[in-house]
Amino acid sequence: MLILLTNDDGVFAPGLRALRKELLKLGKVVVVAPAQEQSGVGHSITLHSPLVVKPIDDDDGSDLGHMVEGSPADCVKLAILELLDRPPDLIVSGINAGSNAGINVLYSGTVAAAIEGAFFKITSVAISLESAEHFDYPHAARHAAKVIERIMANRPEPGSLFNVNLPAHVRGEPRGVKVVPMGLGRYGEGFERRRDPRGRTYYWMTYKPPFHLEGTESDVSALTQGYITVTPLHFDLTRAEALEPLTRWDWSGVGATRDGSPGR
Amino acid sequence: MLILLTNDDGVFAPGLRALRKELLKLGKVVVVAPAQEQSGVGHSITLHSPLVVKPIDDDDGSDLGHMVEGSPADCVKLAILELLDRPPDLIVSGINAGSNAGINVLYSGTVAAAIEGAFFKITSVAISLESAEHFDYPHAARHAAKVIERIMANRPEPGSLFNVNLPAHVRGEPRGVKVVPMGLGRYGEGFERRRDPRGRTYYWMTYKPPFHLEGTESDVSALTQGYITVTPLHFDLTRAEALEPLTRWDWSGVGATRDGSPGR
Repeated sequence: MLILLTNDDGVFAPGLRALRKELLKLGKVVVVAPAQEQSGVGHSITLHSPLVVKPIDDDDGSDLGHMVEGSPADCVKLAILELLDRPPDLIVSGINAGSNAGINVLYSGTVAAAIEGAFFKITSVAISLESAEHFDYPHAARHAAKVIERIMANRPEPGSLFNVNLPAHVRGEPRGVKVVPMGLGRYGEGFERRRDPRGRTYYWMTYKPPFHLEGTESDVSALTQGYITVTPLHFDLTRAEALEPLTRWDWSGVGATRDGSPGR
Repeated sequence: MLILLTNDDGVFAPGLRALRKELLKLGKVVVVAPAQEQSGVGHSITLHSPLVVKPIDDDDGSDLGHMVEGSPADCVKLAILELLDRPPDLIVSGINAGSNAGINVLYSGTVAAAIEGAFFKITSVAISLESAEHFDYPHAARHAAKVIERIMANRPEPGSLFNVNLPAHVRGEPRGVKVVPMGLGRYGEGFERRRDPRGRTYYWMTYKPPFHLEGTESDVSALTQGYITVTPLHFDLTRAEALEPLTRWDWSGVGATRDGSPGR
């Protein structure tokens, strides 16, 4: 099995290193990851500047893969289209320093890399570790590899997309796996207003857990309870049930007029 | 009606300016937009640096709103939580220089701003104009305002999310409005490999329209045919139909062992 490993914390991040060690037991692992930390970049791509790519070696001098001066999504595109000899059987993104659950999934570079993999119809898994004072990546990587092994053992359709969150080790061993939907509640962010020495106003984003844990179980609530969460994702943002009602709205007079002549 | 107007091309972009002029006929418009162009940033947010905010005036000295040294999503958060006296009735993002159709929707800072608005349960509309040698923003803004007027006339549920693409003027007047799903085909990107004067390898992303226009109609195909496209979006990335099958997979031995003792 050929595994492409990427992340959004940068090629030298300890989460990626720990996960690579475990994934080597499952197959050949090639790393293509950003040169710098890219947290909070979401699904950005680099259109207006060139992507500089450098090969990187492991500590023992063996070939590790490539670092890319770009986003996680750039890395996946470049790996598949240019850097790998053949398309990987699996793309893994992580381990991210901090969970990617609830609507934060939409901000996540870690998940974006996995979505990019799904665009290419390659099964892709995003792995994130809940924040704690100390990130125990080797511990998390062992659990992550087990989850990945189970996913592949079930032979998912190519292009399947999974978002996996691991509870922090400080909670003890994970209580097991829960398959849960993505939480839809808004986080309780706020801003702290300050003034710089020259009198300019600036703001720091502050951050609280979601206001309400929704009635139904979600990745946010299950992670809080100490479970490993597995959420199947898709990238179809169409709100399908709204298509038909919207078609019945009166759109006449927008664009060309009824007789086909140019509208004004 | 209080309208929050933002974009990802920056507060001084001509697309925003043209749209503001038309939106002023529908209500009060407050601009909160990025200080710099943010194209391709996707749904990024600024966590690790402060957001500097400056008030900006219109050419006649009247109050236009604020510019923010951050992403489109930052702008929407800051506007709602700090800068506006009350939540807006509508958020409009655009007019973007270039369409945001198909899977490009996931890369789009323009759409991300609208999604951020939907997080706050405010009706939000992203507006993008197909690329052409010349962007005719005043023309596009007239059509965009009509579409927005129709959307609001139908009193959508608060938090409804719409992605609107306008065909380039060079195609003539739009042929009308089509309500269509987001296309799911991959674009035919590739990379051009080059060497810099010091021998380093770098790549430029190249870009082609999607390989196949899917069998079913989509925003991509309808825009190509010269229609204004309206696509209702959601931000729930859960692939709901996969939840139940995944629950039946064998997850035993991942995390705590069956008897509740710590797994290894």
